[in-house]
Amino acid sequence: MSNLRLTALLALVVALPAPADWFSEQEIETARELRERALAGDGGFEIVADLTTRIGPRMAGTEADAKAVAWAEELLNDIGFDRVWLEPVTFDTWHREFERVTVRAPGVTEQELVSLALGFTPATPEGGIEAEVVMFEDLAALQAADAEAVEGRIVFIANRMERSRDGSTYGPAVQARSQGPQVAAEKGAEAIVIRSIGTSNNRFAHTGMTRFDDASQAIPAVAISNPDADQLERMVALGEPVTVHVEVSAVYSEPYTSHNVIAEITGSESPERIVALGAHLDSWDVGTGALDDGAGIAIITDAARLILDLDERPKRSIHVIYFAAEEIGLLGGRAWAEKHHKNFENYQLGAESDFGAGPIYEIAARVSDEAWPVIEAIQAELEPLGIELGGREASGGPDFIPSLPHGLAVVDLRQDGTDYFDYHHTDNDTLDKIDPDNLAQNSAAYAVLAWLAAQSPKDFGSGPELLEQ
Amino acid sequence: MSNLRLTALLALVVALPAPADWFSEQEIETARELRERALAGDGGFEIVADLTTRIGPRMAGTEADAKAVAWAEELLNDIGFDRVWLEPVTFDTWHREFERVTVRAPGVTEQELVSLALGFTPATPEGGIEAEVVMFEDLAALQAADAEAVEGRIVFIANRMERSRDGSTYGPAVQARSQGPQVAAEKGAEAIVIRSIGTSNNRFAHTGMTRFDDASQAIPAVAISNPDADQLERMVALGEPVTVHVEVSAVYSEPYTSHNVIAEITGSESPERIVALGAHLDSWDVGTGALDDGAGIAIITDAARLILDLDERPKRSIHVIYFAAEEIGLLGGRAWAEKHHKNFENYQLGAESDFGAGPIYEIAARVSDEAWPVIEAIQAELEPLGIELGGREASGGPDFIPSLPHGLAVVDLRQDGTDYFDYHHTDNDTLDKIDPDNLAQNSAAYAVLAWLAAQSPKDFGSGPELLEQ
Repeated sequence: MSNLRLTALLALVVALPAPADWFSEQEIETARELRERALAGDGGFEIVADLTTRIGPRMAGTEADAKAVAWAEELLNDIGFDRVWLEPVTFDTWHREFERVTVRAPGVTEQELVSLALGFTPATPEGGIEAEVVMFEDLAALQAADAEAVEGRIVFIANRMERSRDGSTYGPAVQARSQGPQVAAEKGAEAIVIRSIGTSNNRFAHTGMTRFDDASQAIPAVAISNPDADQLERMVALGEPVTVHVEVSAVYSEPYTSHNVIAEITGSESPERIVALGAHLDSWDVGTGALDDGAGIAIITDAARLILDLDERPKRSIHVIYFAAEEIGLLGGRAWAEKHHKNFENYQLGAESDFGAGPIYEIAARVSDEAWPVIEAIQAELEPLGIELGGREASGGPDFIPSLPHGLAVVDLRQDGTDYFDYHHTDNDTLDKIDPDNLAQNSAAYAVLAWLAAQSPKDFGSGPELLEQ
Repeated sequence: MSNLRLTALLALVVALPAPADWFSEQEIETARELRERALAGDGGFEIVADLTTRIGPRMAGTEADAKAVAWAEELLNDIGFDRVWLEPVTFDTWHREFERVTVRAPGVTEQELVSLALGFTPATPEGGIEAEVVMFEDLAALQAADAEAVEGRIVFIANRMERSRDGSTYGPAVQARSQGPQVAAEKGAEAIVIRSIGTSNNRFAHTGMTRFDDASQAIPAVAISNPDADQLERMVALGEPVTVHVEVSAVYSEPYTSHNVIAEITGSESPERIVALGAHLDSWDVGTGALDDGAGIAIITDAARLILDLDERPKRSIHVIYFAAEEIGLLGGRAWAEKHHKNFENYQLGAESDFGAGPIYEIAARVSDEAWPVIEAIQAELEPLGIELGGREASGGPDFIPSLPHGLAVVDLRQDGTDYFDYHHTDNDTLDKIDPDNLAQNSAAYAVLAWLAAQSPKDFGSGPELLEQ
């Protein structure tokens, strides 16, 4: 048993002052029981082990996507949710066949670099593209460059993502991936190679989405691993022109319909009022999507199962939502927002787990002023898990972002992501990267949150008026 | 500057009792200067950076092998050794084209496992081999199995290598690679999949050699990464038959002649007496061979260069030997032993650096009884580097093993290999895995060893009589 688990169990023994203004003693007692049972169990780990073993990689629009949806429906029915249903999500698809980046320079032996094509980028002509490399320190340097320095060349953006607990270093770094290809294309580049948006020195390339304003002008875009980016930098530093050969084979296919998979614990008093827990079922086509986002699937399902096991149903309903096609553009989240936003006065709170399996250290929430003390009261029951009270800015997680403009109230249970970008979108995102104790801490936090939010004497303020706050 | 470097520099200031029985005060002073200059420099890191950047992977018998030999000859001449020459090493060659391991089981989505074919194993027929997996806990379990349990199947050996500082856990674990394929072939297996002989949970397969008694009965043999071996174990544990499809494309080619590259610092008093420092120039075809064995090349070259920079030549000669084709059977080491063993009374001491770039913690030596006090005196000058006195069993490193039956006296400067088998024989063996401070500590130790061994008032006892000791 971890120290954390022990601390949490001891906390049950020591009588804490109940925030009786908001919850009954019995409700608080139930929250503590849920917390204890989550920490003592390994139901979450079993779920992510089963998903990653039986389904493995499950990129949106692949055969494995359909298998994952079937797996999910069966699991949620087997657990005994009151209702399980599917909501369709239709999207264009793309799949990778292979990519190969080879570097040639005078006095250097031809070497292949470890690479992954970025999602939805075009194939090269058969036989690939070969051109001289023009290296930029970062996206800003590329943006500032004259087109004539770029035209006909292969752009290389060299800057490296820094490590951070809260993942805040991802946003600035990922612009090289999200915007770099478009900028390079505008300036006439033949292709673009970026240093992976990742923090480890292991030799894995990190894939992910990019965007072109005009698909007809899209260029092949690949990421290379950190060690390979170092290598390419060293080759460029030798001072002679460096040539890179890029070959990508990838296929765009017909639109595909996947599904958001939703399971309900039907509320006993206000069943139309909903606390929505989310995670996404799809993964990239590399790795088995254990951290991204098998862990999230496991956490919210384990939390909800513990609530289902109670003798009573919560007052409000709880939804467990497995979003489809998150990786390729939050498509499940968009479809969900589109379908449900007119009813957001009933969808009272959204919280998605999609940042791996590190321990949660903070709760933040975007809720009405009136509901904020309820969040404080919930935090008091998360405190024994090492979870502190954060601020009033929150996104709810990627799949709830499309709901934010419609005023969905959201909670962030913020995880320690120090190592998350070592594995994110790589072949190396596999089950062994999950610490079962940390996963259980997450389940405990989501169980406490979902239970108390479903019992809350106040709604959380979802709806257009939240936007004005 | 690391604490280790600082400690070593401080040790220069504090007057230590010189082991005057064996070395003059001036000789000891020079040893300390060498140690200090090695710790303060980064010449070794520059060498391994240049080798791994310009040449990259350099498997014996490839085009990169020839480029590496040319690189080495140029480097050693540029440094200004008194003599540089090549000695031919001829061997059969093999090269990998690709390998693919795909697993199928009822209720499981088809998944590809990260794999590498073992060196010199045969290709599958085009289209691959598909058969049911039979899993064994370890090599002993396979050895104990009835042939009928194995015949027509694909063997999977599941045991995992443990981590250790001295690498002593490698020997027992690697038998699954060296002997497993032969045993599986004898029992009629179609192919064999082993868990990689490696210690990390990163998703890299580890290649390496295996052996078949009769090449005509050889079967395709591949290693899968630790996470993939875990995955295959979990699939087998589901209880239904698991099928694996293995496809390997690899080519045996004509004999190739590479070279041991040797550079000499010619001794001033007894030039025919030689202290031989070794490392191997070849690498596997994956990774850039930074740890295995670019680090060794860098360490021994940097150490010898520091001695070359002295105002005086040492009494005995020092040879820096870049062995060829170590990875595919110690072939450079065998050729060297064959060529020189009749002259081993002159080859007084061999020491190879081939265990990565971790710090050295111990010196051990197989030398004559009379010479052992000299080793103790040398250790006194290694002590400030954190290097303790070990015992009297030593191998000298892989490429000197073929010289042991001829009585070569050898020294082991034992490195901390706790992380070595995280990277060994994988794509992930790249320059970033080398800590320049640790590399400099190694250079310092080899410089002290080579200098004092070359000045030693006693020979070290190489020759047939050492075998009887």
